[in-house]
Amino acid sequence: MAQLKLYNYFRSSTSYRVRIALNFKKIDYDYLPVHLLKNGGEQHQQAYRNLNPMGGVPCLLHNEVIIGQSMAIIEYLEEAFPDKPLFPSNFESKAIIRQFCEDINSGIHPLGNLQVLQYLEKNYSFNQKQKEEWVQHWLSKGLKAIETNLQKNSDGKFCFYNKLTAADVFLVPQIFTARRFNVDLSHFPICVSVSEHCEKIECFIQAHPKNQPDSE
Amino acid sequence: MAQLKLYNYFRSSTSYRVRIALNFKKIDYDYLPVHLLKNGGEQHQQAYRNLNPMGGVPCLLHNEVIIGQSMAIIEYLEEAFPDKPLFPSNFESKAIIRQFCEDINSGIHPLGNLQVLQYLEKNYSFNQKQKEEWVQHWLSKGLKAIETNLQKNSDGKFCFYNKLTAADVFLVPQIFTARRFNVDLSHFPICVSVSEHCEKIECFIQAHPKNQPDSE
Repeated sequence: MAQLKLYNYFRSSTSYRVRIALNFKKIDYDYLPVHLLKNGGEQHQQAYRNLNPMGGVPCLLHNEVIIGQSMAIIEYLEEAFPDKPLFPSNFESKAIIRQFCEDINSGIHPLGNLQVLQYLEKNYSFNQKQKEEWVQHWLSKGLKAIETNLQKNSDGKFCFYNKLTAADVFLVPQIFTARRFNVDLSHFPICVSVSEHCEKIECFIQAHPKNQPDSE
Repeated sequence: MAQLKLYNYFRSSTSYRVRIALNFKKIDYDYLPVHLLKNGGEQHQQAYRNLNPMGGVPCLLHNEVIIGQSMAIIEYLEEAFPDKPLFPSNFESKAIIRQFCEDINSGIHPLGNLQVLQYLEKNYSFNQKQKEEWVQHWLSKGLKAIETNLQKNSDGKFCFYNKLTAADVFLVPQIFTARRFNVDLSHFPICVSVSEHCEKIECFIQAHPKNQPDSE
Protein backbone atom coordinates (compact mmCIF):
# COMPACT_ATOMS: atom_id res chain seq x y z
CA MET A 1 0.00 0.00 0.00
CA ALA A 2 1.42 3.37 -1.06
CA GLN A 3 2.15 6.07 1.47
CA LEU A 4 -0.64 8.65 1.79
CA LYS A 5 0.02 12.17 0.63
CA LEU A 6 -1.84 15.09 2.16
CA TYR A 7 -1.93 18.43 0.40
CA ASN A 8 -2.67 20.92 3.15
CA TYR A 9 -1.87 24.21 4.84
CA PHE A 10 -0.80 24.59 8.45
CA ARG A 11 -3.42 27.19 9.46
CA SER A 12 -6.36 25.78 7.50
CA SER A 13 -8.85 24.38 10.00
CA THR A 14 -10.08 21.80 7.49
CA SER A 15 -6.49 20.56 7.04
CA TYR A 16 -6.08 20.51 10.82
CA ARG A 17 -9.13 18.18 11.09
CA VAL A 18 -7.62 15.66 8.71
CA ARG A 19 -4.22 15.76 10.41
CA ILE A 20 -5.88 14.95 13.76
CA ALA A 21 -7.74 12.00 12.20
CA LEU A 22 -4.56 10.66 10.56
CA ASN A 23 -2.62 10.97 13.80
CA PHE A 24 -5.41 9.36 15.87
CA LYS A 25 -5.45 6.40 13.50
CA LYS A 26 -1.62 6.30 13.50
CA ILE A 27 -1.41 6.58 9.72
CA ASP A 28 1.87 7.88 8.28
CA TYR A 29 1.58 10.44 5.50
CA ASP A 30 3.65 12.81 3.40
CA TYR A 31 2.94 16.44 4.20
CA LEU A 32 2.66 18.47 0.98
CA PRO A 33 2.23 22.16 1.81
CA VAL A 34 -0.03 24.35 -0.34
CA HIS A 35 0.41 27.99 0.60
CA LEU A 36 -2.99 29.69 0.43
CA LEU A 37 -1.57 33.23 0.28
CA LYS A 38 1.85 33.14 -1.42
CA ASN A 39 2.18 33.27 -5.22
CA GLY A 40 -1.44 34.42 -5.54
CA GLY A 41 -2.54 31.33 -3.65
CA GLU A 42 -0.94 28.04 -4.67
CA GLN A 43 -4.36 26.35 -4.50
CA HIS A 44 -5.31 28.27 -7.65
CA GLN A 45 -2.43 26.89 -9.73
CA GLN A 46 -3.41 24.58 -12.57
CA ALA A 47 -1.37 21.62 -11.30
CA TYR A 48 -3.32 21.70 -8.04
CA ARG A 49 -6.66 22.36 -9.76
CA ASN A 50 -6.07 19.21 -11.81
CA LEU A 51 -6.15 17.27 -8.55
CA ASN A 52 -8.95 19.23 -6.93
CA PRO A 53 -11.02 21.47 -9.23
CA MET A 54 -12.61 23.27 -6.24
CA GLY A 55 -9.12 24.44 -5.32
CA GLY A 56 -9.52 23.87 -1.60
CA VAL A 57 -7.30 22.18 0.92
CA PRO A 58 -6.97 19.52 2.17
CA CYS A 59 -6.70 16.96 -0.59
CA LEU A 60 -5.65 13.35 0.02
CA LEU A 61 -3.88 11.04 -2.43
CA HIS A 62 -3.96 7.35 -1.63
CA ASN A 63 -3.18 4.64 -4.16
CA GLU A 64 -5.17 5.74 -7.22
CA VAL A 65 -7.72 7.79 -5.28
CA ILE A 66 -7.75 11.59 -4.99
CA ILE A 67 -10.16 12.97 -2.37
CA GLY A 68 -10.95 16.55 -1.49
CA GLN A 69 -13.23 17.83 1.29
CA SER A 70 -12.25 17.06 4.87
CA MET A 71 -15.52 15.29 5.72
CA ALA A 72 -15.19 12.96 2.72
CA ILE A 73 -11.52 12.32 3.59
CA ILE A 74 -12.31 11.47 7.21
CA GLU A 75 -15.15 9.14 6.16
CA TYR A 76 -12.69 7.50 3.74
CA LEU A 77 -10.05 7.07 6.43
CA GLU A 78 -12.70 5.54 8.71
CA GLU A 79 -13.52 2.91 6.07
CA ALA A 80 -9.96 2.28 4.83
CA PHE A 81 -8.43 2.23 8.33
CA PRO A 82 -11.20 1.01 10.64
CA ASP A 83 -8.97 -0.16 13.51
CA LYS A 84 -9.22 3.00 15.58
CA PRO A 85 -12.75 4.25 14.88
CA LEU A 86 -13.76 7.90 14.99
CA PHE A 87 -17.47 7.11 14.64
CA PRO A 88 -19.69 4.85 16.78
CA SER A 89 -20.64 1.57 15.15
CA ASN A 90 -24.43 1.89 15.44
CA PHE A 91 -25.91 4.15 12.84
CA GLU A 92 -28.17 6.16 15.16
CA SER A 93 -25.17 7.36 17.19
CA LYS A 94 -23.16 7.78 14.00
CA ALA A 95 -25.86 10.12 12.68
CA ILE A 96 -25.60 12.28 15.82
CA ILE A 97 -21.84 12.62 15.31
CA ARG A 98 -22.21 13.31 11.60
CA GLN A 99 -24.78 16.04 12.24
CA PHE A 100 -22.39 17.68 14.70
CA CYS A 101 -19.52 17.51 12.20
CA GLU A 102 -21.74 18.98 9.48
CA ASP A 103 -22.97 21.77 11.75
CA ILE A 104 -19.32 22.87 11.73
CA ASN A 105 -18.33 21.69 8.24
CA SER A 106 -21.21 23.22 6.29
CA GLY A 107 -22.98 25.33 8.92
CA ILE A 108 -20.15 27.39 10.38
CA HIS A 109 -16.80 27.06 8.63
CA PRO A 110 -17.63 28.03 4.99
CA LEU A 111 -18.88 31.50 5.96
CA GLY A 112 -15.59 32.55 7.55
CA ASN A 113 -13.38 30.88 4.98
CA LEU A 114 -10.42 32.70 3.38
CA GLN A 115 -12.09 32.96 -0.03
CA VAL A 116 -15.09 34.78 1.46
CA LEU A 117 -12.91 37.25 3.36
CA GLN A 118 -10.82 37.92 0.25
CA TYR A 119 -14.01 38.50 -1.76
CA LEU A 120 -15.45 40.88 0.85
CA GLU A 121 -12.17 42.82 0.90
CA LYS A 122 -11.81 43.02 -2.86
CA ASN A 123 -15.41 43.75 -3.83
CA TYR A 124 -16.87 45.46 -0.77
CA SER A 125 -13.72 47.11 0.63
CA PHE A 126 -13.96 45.33 3.95
CA ASN A 127 -11.07 46.30 6.22
CA GLN A 128 -9.45 44.00 8.78
CA LYS A 129 -11.90 44.98 11.51
CA GLN A 130 -14.93 44.41 9.30
CA LYS A 131 -13.63 41.02 8.21
CA GLU A 132 -13.09 40.09 11.84
CA GLU A 133 -16.64 41.16 12.73
CA TRP A 134 -18.00 39.09 9.83
CA VAL A 135 -16.24 35.96 11.10
CA GLN A 136 -17.22 36.71 14.69
CA HIS A 137 -20.89 36.92 13.71
CA TRP A 138 -21.03 33.53 11.99
CA LEU A 139 -18.79 31.72 14.44
CA SER A 140 -20.68 33.04 17.48
CA LYS A 141 -24.04 32.13 15.92
CA GLY A 142 -22.88 28.60 15.12
CA LEU A 143 -21.04 28.00 18.38
CA LYS A 144 -24.17 28.98 20.30
CA ALA A 145 -25.97 26.02 18.72
CA ILE A 146 -22.97 23.75 19.24
CA GLU A 147 -22.84 24.75 22.93
CA THR A 148 -26.57 23.92 23.35
CA ASN A 149 -25.96 20.53 21.77
CA LEU A 150 -22.95 19.83 24.02
CA GLN A 151 -24.84 20.90 27.16
CA LYS A 152 -26.99 17.81 26.65
CA ASN A 153 -24.26 15.44 25.55
CA SER A 154 -20.77 16.35 26.70
CA ASP A 155 -18.86 15.39 29.84
CA GLY A 156 -16.66 18.47 29.39
CA LYS A 157 -13.78 16.34 28.12
CA PHE A 158 -15.14 15.04 24.84
CA CYS A 159 -18.17 16.11 22.80
CA PHE A 160 -20.09 12.81 22.92
CA TYR A 161 -20.14 9.42 24.62
CA ASN A 162 -17.21 10.28 26.97
CA LYS A 163 -14.69 9.44 24.29
CA LEU A 164 -12.82 10.84 21.34
CA THR A 165 -14.93 10.90 18.16
CA ALA A 166 -14.99 12.79 14.88
CA ALA A 167 -16.98 15.49 16.72
CA ASP A 168 -13.86 16.47 18.70
CA VAL A 169 -11.81 16.35 15.49
CA PHE A 170 -14.10 19.04 14.05
CA LEU A 171 -14.56 21.12 17.21
CA VAL A 172 -10.92 21.75 18.15
CA PRO A 173 -9.88 23.38 14.82
CA GLN A 174 -13.05 25.49 14.87
CA ILE A 175 -12.16 26.81 18.33
CA PHE A 176 -8.61 27.48 17.09
CA THR A 177 -10.10 29.63 14.29
CA ALA A 178 -12.44 31.34 16.74
CA ARG A 179 -9.46 32.39 18.86
CA ARG A 180 -7.60 33.67 15.78
CA PHE A 181 -10.52 35.97 15.03
CA ASN A 182 -10.96 37.07 18.67
CA VAL A 183 -14.41 35.52 19.07
CA ASP A 184 -15.63 35.99 22.66
CA LEU A 185 -15.56 32.38 23.86
CA SER A 186 -16.90 33.13 27.35
CA HIS A 187 -20.41 32.21 26.14
CA PHE A 188 -19.27 28.73 25.13
CA PRO A 189 -17.73 27.14 28.24
CA ILE A 190 -18.30 23.52 27.23
CA CYS A 191 -16.80 24.08 23.77
CA VAL A 192 -13.75 25.59 25.46
CA SER A 193 -13.54 22.87 28.09
CA VAL A 194 -13.64 20.07 25.52
CA SER A 195 -11.21 21.85 23.25
CA GLU A 196 -8.70 22.50 26.05
CA HIS A 197 -8.92 18.88 27.15
CA CYS A 198 -8.42 17.49 23.65
CA GLU A 199 -5.61 19.89 22.79
CA LYS A 200 -3.47 18.05 25.35
CA ILE A 201 -3.86 14.69 23.59
CA GLU A 202 -0.94 13.63 21.43
CA CYS A 203 -2.83 13.30 18.11
CA PHE A 204 -4.12 16.87 18.53
CA ILE A 205 -0.73 18.27 19.59
CA GLN A 206 0.99 16.78 16.52
CA ALA A 207 -1.73 18.19 14.27
CA HIS A 208 -1.65 21.74 15.67
CA PRO A 209 -0.86 24.44 13.09
CA LYS A 210 2.21 25.56 15.04
CA ASN A 211 3.74 22.09 14.76
CA GLN A 212 3.61 21.77 10.95
CA PRO A 213 6.57 22.03 8.55
CA ASP A 214 5.07 25.07 6.79
CA SER A 215 4.17 26.85 10.05
CA GLU A 216 5.13 30.52 10.18
CA MET B 1 -40.98 1.05 13.19
CA ALA B 2 -42.44 4.54 13.52
CA GLN B 3 -43.22 6.65 10.49
CA LEU B 4 -40.46 9.14 9.65
CA LYS B 5 -41.17 12.83 10.06
CA LEU B 6 -39.36 15.39 7.97
CA TYR B 7 -39.33 19.04 9.00
CA ASN B 8 -38.63 20.91 5.80
CA TYR B 9 -39.48 23.77 3.46
CA PHE B 10 -40.54 23.37 -0.15
CA ARG B 11 -37.97 25.74 -1.67
CA SER B 12 -35.01 24.81 0.53
CA SER B 13 -32.48 22.97 -1.64
CA THR B 14 -31.21 20.99 1.33
CA SER B 15 -34.79 19.81 2.05
CA TYR B 16 -35.19 18.98 -1.64
CA ARG B 17 -32.11 16.69 -1.44
CA VAL B 18 -33.57 14.68 1.43
CA ARG B 19 -36.98 14.37 -0.26
CA ILE B 20 -35.31 12.92 -3.37
CA ALA B 21 -33.39 10.40 -1.24
CA LEU B 22 -36.55 9.37 0.65
CA ASN B 23 -38.50 8.95 -2.60
CA PHE B 24 -35.69 7.03 -4.28
CA LYS B 25 -35.60 4.62 -1.35
CA LYS B 26 -39.42 4.46 -1.33
CA ILE B 27 -39.64 5.50 2.32
CA ASP B 28 -42.94 7.01 3.45
CA TYR B 29 -42.71 10.09 5.65
CA ASP B 30 -44.81 12.81 7.23
CA TYR B 31 -44.17 16.21 5.70
CA LEU B 32 -43.93 18.87 8.42
CA PRO B 33 -43.55 22.31 6.85
CA VAL B 34 -41.32 24.94 8.50
CA HIS B 35 -41.82 28.30 6.81
CA LEU B 36 -38.45 30.05 6.64
CA LEU B 37 -39.92 33.51 6.05
CA LYS B 38 -43.34 33.73 7.74
CA ASN B 39 -43.67 34.62 11.43
CA GLY B 40 -40.09 35.88 11.51
CA GLY B 41 -38.94 32.47 10.29
CA GLU B 42 -40.49 29.46 11.97
CA GLN B 43 -37.03 27.82 12.15
CA HIS B 44 -36.13 30.36 14.84
CA GLN B 45 -38.99 29.40 17.16
CA GLN B 46 -37.99 27.74 20.41
CA ALA B 47 -39.95 24.54 19.78
CA TYR B 48 -38.01 23.99 16.58
CA ARG B 49 -34.69 25.03 18.11
CA ASN B 50 -35.23 22.37 20.76
CA LEU B 51 -35.12 19.80 17.98
CA ASN B 52 -32.35 21.43 15.99
CA PRO B 53 -30.30 24.12 17.77
CA MET B 54 -28.74 25.28 14.47
CA GLY B 55 -32.25 26.20 13.34
CA GLY B 56 -31.83 24.87 9.82
CA VAL B 57 -34.03 22.65 7.71
CA PRO B 58 -34.30 19.79 7.02
CA CYS B 59 -34.55 17.86 10.26
CA LEU B 60 -35.53 14.20 10.40
CA LEU B 61 -37.27 12.40 13.27
CA HIS B 62 -37.14 8.63 13.26
CA ASN B 63 -37.87 6.48 16.30
CA GLU B 64 -35.90 8.22 19.04
CA VAL B 65 -33.40 9.87 16.73
CA ILE B 66 -33.40 13.52 15.66
CA ILE B 67 -31.02 14.37 12.82
CA GLY B 68 -30.28 17.71 11.21
CA GLN B 69 -28.01 18.43 8.23
CA SER B 70 -28.98 16.93 4.88
CA MET B 71 -25.69 15.07 4.42
CA ALA B 72 -25.99 13.40 7.82
CA ILE B 73 -29.64 12.54 7.11
CA ILE B 74 -28.83 10.96 3.74
CA GLU B 75 -25.96 8.95 5.25
CA TYR B 76 -28.39 7.81 7.97
CA LEU B 77 -31.03 6.79 5.41
CA GLU B 78 -28.34 4.87 3.51
CA GLU B 79 -27.49 2.86 6.63
CA ALA B 80 -31.03 2.44 7.99
CA PHE B 81 -32.57 1.63 4.58
CA PRO B 82 -29.77 0.02 2.55
CA ASP B 83 -31.98 -1.74 -0.02
CA LYS B 84 -31.78 0.91 -2.70
CA PRO B 85 -28.27 2.33 -2.29
CA LEU B 86 -27.30 5.90 -3.14
CA PHE B 87 -23.60 5.26 -2.63
CA PRO B 88 -21.33 2.65 -4.28
CA SER B 89 -20.32 -0.22 -2.00
CA ASN B 90 -16.54 0.10 -2.37
CA PHE B 91 -15.08 2.87 -0.28
CA GLU B 92 -12.88 4.41 -2.98
CA SER B 93 -15.89 5.11 -5.21
CA LYS B 94 -17.92 6.15 -2.17
CA ALA B 95 -15.25 8.75 -1.36
CA ILE B 96 -15.54 10.20 -4.88
CA ILE B 97 -19.31 10.59 -4.44
CA ARG B 98 -18.94 12.03 -0.95
CA GLN B 99 -16.42 14.62 -2.15
CA PHE B 100 -18.83 15.67 -4.89
CA CYS B 101 -21.71 15.97 -2.40
CA GLU B 102 -19.52 18.00 -0.05
CA ASP B 103 -18.33 20.29 -2.85
CA ILE B 104 -22.00 21.31 -3.05
CA ASN B 105 -22.96 20.86 0.60
CA SER B 106 -20.12 22.80 2.20
CA GLY B 107 -18.38 24.36 -0.81
CA ILE B 108 -21.25 26.03 -2.65
CA HIS B 109 -24.58 26.01 -0.86
CA PRO B 110 -23.78 27.72 2.49
CA LEU B 111 -22.59 30.93 0.82
CA GLY B 112 -25.89 31.58 -0.94
CA ASN B 113 -28.08 30.44 1.91
CA LEU B 114 -31.07 32.50 3.11
CA GLN B 115 -29.39 33.48 6.40
CA VAL B 116 -26.43 35.00 4.55
CA LEU B 117 -28.65 37.01 2.19
CA GLN B 118 -30.75 38.27 5.11
CA TYR B 119 -27.58 39.30 6.93
CA LEU B 120 -26.17 41.11 3.89
CA GLU B 121 -29.47 42.95 3.45
CA LYS B 122 -29.85 43.91 7.08
CA ASN B 123 -26.25 44.89 7.87
CA TYR B 124 -24.83 45.96 4.53
CA SER B 125 -27.99 47.23 2.82
CA PHE B 126 -27.72 44.79 -0.07
CA ASN B 127 -30.63 45.24 -2.48
CA GLN B 128 -32.20 42.43 -4.51
CA LYS B 129 -29.76 42.87 -7.39
CA GLN B 130 -26.72 42.82 -5.11
CA LYS B 131 -27.98 39.71 -3.35
CA GLU B 132 -28.49 38.03 -6.70
CA GLU B 133 -24.95 38.97 -7.80
CA TRP B 134 -23.58 37.55 -4.54
CA VAL B 135 -25.29 34.21 -5.12
CA GLN B 136 -24.31 34.21 -8.80
CA HIS B 137 -20.65 34.67 -7.89
CA TRP B 138 -20.46 31.72 -5.50
CA LEU B 139 -22.66 29.40 -7.52
CA SER B 140 -20.79 30.10 -10.77
CA LYS B 141 -17.43 29.59 -9.06
CA GLY B 142 -18.52 26.28 -7.56
CA LEU B 143 -20.35 24.99 -10.61
CA LYS B 144 -17.23 25.61 -12.70
CA ALA B 145 -15.38 23.06 -10.54
CA ILE B 146 -18.35 20.69 -10.58
CA GLU B 147 -18.49 20.89 -14.39
CA THR B 148 -14.75 20.06 -14.64
CA ASN B 149 -15.31 17.06 -12.40
CA LEU B 150 -18.30 15.86 -14.45
CA GLN B 151 -16.42 16.28 -17.75
CA LYS B 152 -14.21 13.42 -16.62
CA ASN B 153 -16.92 11.28 -15.04
CA SER B 154 -20.43 11.87 -16.35
CA ASP B 155 -22.31 10.26 -19.22
CA GLY B 156 -24.56 13.32 -19.41
CA LYS B 157 -27.42 11.45 -17.72
CA PHE B 158 -26.03 10.88 -14.25
CA CYS B 159 -23.02 12.39 -12.48
CA PHE B 160 -21.05 9.18 -11.92
CA TYR B 161 -20.95 5.52 -12.88
CA ASN B 162 -23.88 5.82 -15.36
CA LYS B 163 -26.40 5.50 -12.56
CA LEU B 164 -28.28 7.45 -9.95
CA THR B 165 -26.18 8.19 -6.86
CA ALA B 166 -26.16 10.73 -4.04
CA ALA B 167 -24.22 13.03 -6.41
CA ASP B 168 -27.35 13.52 -8.54
CA VAL B 169 -29.39 14.03 -5.37
CA PHE B 170 -27.15 17.00 -4.52
CA LEU B 171 -26.72 18.38 -8.04
CA VAL B 172 -30.37 18.76 -9.08
CA PRO B 173 -31.45 21.02 -6.17
CA GLN B 174 -28.30 23.13 -6.65
CA ILE B 175 -29.21 23.69 -10.32
CA PHE B 176 -32.78 24.54 -9.21
CA THR B 177 -31.32 27.25 -6.93
CA ALA B 178 -29.00 28.47 -9.69
CA ARG B 179 -32.01 28.99 -11.97
CA ARG B 180 -33.90 30.84 -9.21
CA PHE B 181 -31.01 33.32 -8.98
CA ASN B 182 -30.57 33.63 -12.75
CA VAL B 183 -27.10 32.10 -12.84
CA ASP B 184 -25.88 31.84 -16.44
CA LEU B 185 -25.88 28.05 -16.87
CA SER B 186 -24.55 28.10 -20.45
CA HIS B 187 -21.04 27.49 -19.08
CA PHE B 188 -22.11 24.29 -17.37
CA PRO B 189 -23.62 22.07 -20.07
CA ILE B 190 -23.01 18.74 -18.34
CA CYS B 191 -24.51 19.97 -15.07
CA VAL B 192 -27.58 21.06 -17.02
CA SER B 193 -27.76 17.84 -19.04
CA VAL B 194 -27.61 15.63 -15.93
CA SER B 195 -30.07 17.81 -14.09
CA GLU B 196 -32.59 17.82 -16.96
CA HIS B 197 -32.31 14.06 -17.29
CA CYS B 198 -32.79 13.41 -13.57
CA GLU B 199 -35.63 15.89 -13.22
CA LYS B 200 -37.76 13.54 -15.34
CA ILE B 201 -37.29 10.62 -12.94
CA GLU B 202 -40.22 9.97 -10.59
CA CYS B 203 -38.32 10.37 -7.29
CA PHE B 204 -37.08 13.79 -8.42
CA ILE B 205 -40.50 14.88 -9.74
CA GLN B 206 -42.20 14.03 -6.43
CA ALA B 207 -39.50 15.93 -4.53
CA HIS B 208 -39.64 19.10 -6.64
CA PRO B 209 -40.48 22.27 -4.67
CA LYS B 210 -43.57 22.91 -6.80
CA ASN B 211 -45.05 19.56 -5.80
CA GLN B 212 -44.91 20.03 -2.02
CA PRO B 213 -47.87 20.72 0.29
CA ASP B 214 -46.42 24.09 1.36
CA SER B 215 -45.55 25.18 -2.19
CA GLU B 216 -46.57 28.73 -3.07
